[in-house]
Amino acid sequence: MKSFEFWFDVGSPAAYLAWKRLPSFAAANHAAVVHKPMLLGGVFKATGNASPVTIPAKGKWLFADLARAAQRDGVPLGYPPDFPVNTLALMRAAIGLQQKSPERFVAFVDAAFDSIFGIPRKDIREGGFDPDAILALTNDPGIKAALIRNTEEAVSRGVFGAPTFFVGDELFWGQDRMDDVARALR
Amino acid sequence: MKSFEFWFDVGSPAAYLAWKRLPSFAAANHAAVVHKPMLLGGVFKATGNASPVTIPAKGKWLFADLARAAQRDGVPLGYPPDFPVNTLALMRAAIGLQQKSPERFVAFVDAAFDSIFGIPRKDIREGGFDPDAILALTNDPGIKAALIRNTEEAVSRGVFGAPTFFVGDELFWGQDRMDDVARALR
Repeated sequence: MKSFEFWFDVGSPAAYLAWKRLPSFAAANHAAVVHKPMLLGGVFKATGNASPVTIPAKGKWLFADLARAAQRDGVPLGYPPDFPVNTLALMRAAIGLQQKSPERFVAFVDAAFDSIFGIPRKDIREGGFDPDAILALTNDPGIKAALIRNTEEAVSRGVFGAPTFFVGDELFWGQDRMDDVARALR
Repeated sequence: MKSFEFWFDVGSPAAYLAWKRLPSFAAANHAAVVHKPMLLGGVFKATGNASPVTIPAKGKWLFADLARAAQRDGVPLGYPPDFPVNTLALMRAAIGLQQKSPERFVAFVDAAFDSIFGIPRKDIREGGFDPDAILALTNDPGIKAALIRNTEEAVSRGVFGAPTFFVGDELFWGQDRMDDVARALR
């Protein structure tokens, strides 16, 4: 079976939109998703890139552009009052679950995205995730190191933003490049 | 007849790809193009934005992304050895022709784009443009002021990059958002 990589951080609204399309996209393209959690803040720091919202005019456009995409996709997209959010703990928890309870990984990432961008925002406890167990994961040195390792791998392979897709070594950046990913998979 | 604005600088490869699609796009959407020359360097300075190529990883992706778009569009896209190019004189000439010889404006912009991104690159003299007459335009204080005025108008309306389209007051950034422009025109 073909596969592609999906590199993400749950703090990215573009990654959220792509995430919601992933199951149907993967099925339509007969391809498996290889999930790759990374810390977008670390990617920005290493590459010299920054969130588009640091340029006010670009941020204003991006919110309008993502709202159009969300409406087209039929996905509710809201923003928390403290956007952009620090996602270090959530991304550690994501990679921790990927390693230790892989069967719960997708549900956790979904709950984490919905806790930031859902309308209404959902508490991750609603997904049946115990905050204490999640917190313990985020304090595990091996898990901390795994997130750093993934983020370094992302940067070394050319990632500079989220979401990023790879088909083999070909990189596609953005929720608006999924058609290119589909073409590359064919 | 409906219309939309096309804000551009001939130094932008994304604007070049959009430019080459403009005639068929305008016809298909029964809309007139309102051409708006601006100085992208001035827009970057005023907004705090910068060319994507200033982030090496993003620049590398952008070249690959534009190459894919060019191939899809069937448009040859090359880069001059001195890319990115200083387009001040060319953009002054463009706005000068728009004011003084509007019937030659589109041909000049086409020649200017081809002199930068064409394969092979074409000399603007091939388009029948006299370098001395063009140079005289670029030294006209009224034309210099007109380019500044356009660039300031762009910034005041939220432009931060090229190409930018407006349908009424709705802004669309990028050659990859022409489908959104078409939707807005319907």
